Amino acid sequence: MKAQADLSPSALRESIRSGNFTGNTSGLAPGYVQCNIVILPSQWASDFLRFCQANPRPCPLIACSAAPGDAGLPKLGDIDIRRDVPSYRVFHDGAFVEERADIVDLWSDDFMAFALGCSFSFEEALMGAGLDVRNLSENVNVPMYRTNIPCEKAGPFKGDMVVSMRPFLPADAIRAIQICSRFPSVHGAPVHIGDPAAIGIADIGSPDYGDSVTVNDGELPLYWACGVTPQVALENAAPPLAITHSPGYMLVTDMLNTELAIF
Amino acid sequence: MKAQADLSPSALRESIRSGNFTGNTSGLAPGYVQCNIVILPSQWASDFLRFCQANPRPCPLIACSAAPGDAGLPKLGDIDIRRDVPSYRVFHDGAFVEERADIVDLWSDDFMAFALGCSFSFEEALMGAGLDVRNLSENVNVPMYRTNIPCEKAGPFKGDMVVSMRPFLPADAIRAIQICSRFPSVHGAPVHIGDPAAIGIADIGSPDYGDSVTVNDGELPLYWACGVTPQVALENAAPPLAITHSPGYMLVTDMLNTELAIF
Repeated sequence: MKAQADLSPSALRESIRSGNFTGNTSGLAPGYVQCNIVILPSQWASDFLRFCQANPRPCPLIACSAAPGDAGLPKLGDIDIRRDVPSYRVFHDGAFVEERADIVDLWSDDFMAFALGCSFSFEEALMGAGLDVRNLSENVNVPMYRTNIPCEKAGPFKGDMVVSMRPFLPADAIRAIQICSRFPSVHGAPVHIGDPAAIGIADIGSPDYGDSVTVNDGELPLYWACGVTPQVALENAAPPLAITHSPGYMLVTDMLNTELAIF
Repeated sequence: MKAQADLSPSALRESIRSGNFTGNTSGLAPGYVQCNIVILPSQWASDFLRFCQANPRPCPLIACSAAPGDAGLPKLGDIDIRRDVPSYRVFHDGAFVEERADIVDLWSDDFMAFALGCSFSFEEALMGAGLDVRNLSENVNVPMYRTNIPCEKAGPFKGDMVVSMRPFLPADAIRAIQICSRFPSVHGAPVHIGDPAAIGIADIGSPDYGDSVTVNDGELPLYWACGVTPQVALENAAPPLAITHSPGYMLVTDMLNTELAIF
């Protein structure tokens, strides 16, 4: 049997779908896009779509259900969104309730699924350019912070932007901005560089999510809009039922990261 | 008679060629590429071309003489390089000797002319994107600094890079990096951001060339490779005779700035 890391995206999804693989997907199916997932009752769909449209950097929408109850996302592969994510999180009225390996028995003909771009894609591009991605070289989760940068409100969906942070030497920071600018559908260029206080981060050593990483003398922190932002908006909107992936347990797709490059 | 600012590039060159206009060219012929000029005896040409090739960010070569003694640069318009620059500087053995309005009586069948991209092009792109270019809004020359970033040596041409500096708020700095990345033939993306000491600048308030500009709280200085770098390399190489434009008194060409955009 192949190691998970050697599986194609479809073979990996088959392993997830059958319940054989329930781990996080970091580093798996290299070269392929992984997605953040949000699932909502259809009456919330329009506002959520407008929220994504108005806030494309934290919420880069790559695909969504063609109709309520449709569990496929054919643009991304032969997907069954009820079973193809290794771990789901269920929210009632915006509050986390439970984690589950599938949502088959929760699924409703009224559900719409949304797949958003994820930083794994641009981290691969940064590493491919020979840059040190600190959270990867230190083998921890990327540090994430709530900021004072407001998202544009759409109906009940609102909140401040969450950012992820990766430190670089100045010339590498400039290179990282260039590289990530090529990938607007996976958060694109950073939204901030330098002083954490300027965007409302009190202590760069104490992230609100994930782990802290080393920031060496002479390095500048770069901050990217983060896919946790829609989860915060979801908490604020507080729909009666909502489902997301568990952080790090992403939908693995058949789409190549290179397909997302705009130049 | 039209004001200088309304003249087409060719009409402006005609005015310069006839001796009617001898001023600096900042803000003239908007939309068109202006060039740094270096003129050398042909036996120095090969090393200088190698220097430009090895150091494309400070020395982005846009055009050069097709053969020794050829005073035209047809790629850039109907140019007579002996008369079409409003002010020339003459160097003997690397040392500045005199400034002149034309070099007709100095010209030799052995001379080669080199036209290098200039920051006016990317400043226009930055302003077009709504960014505040501080040296323009404060109506002074851009501050320039000698750094400790070594250029790659080519024969006798060598020296550290000279950079120009423009300060921006962090999000605008990211935008400026994106915009200038589109224009590699006019210095391209910045080479440094943030701490001046990291590239050997002792005091950002005391530039080695040009004027100082205001750097406000919360702004990050961005540093671009500068066209003064080849003049420093020229001083070090010390050819018996060399001619350049006078700083700010550029060759105005028929090439559109937008022609230089790579995406």
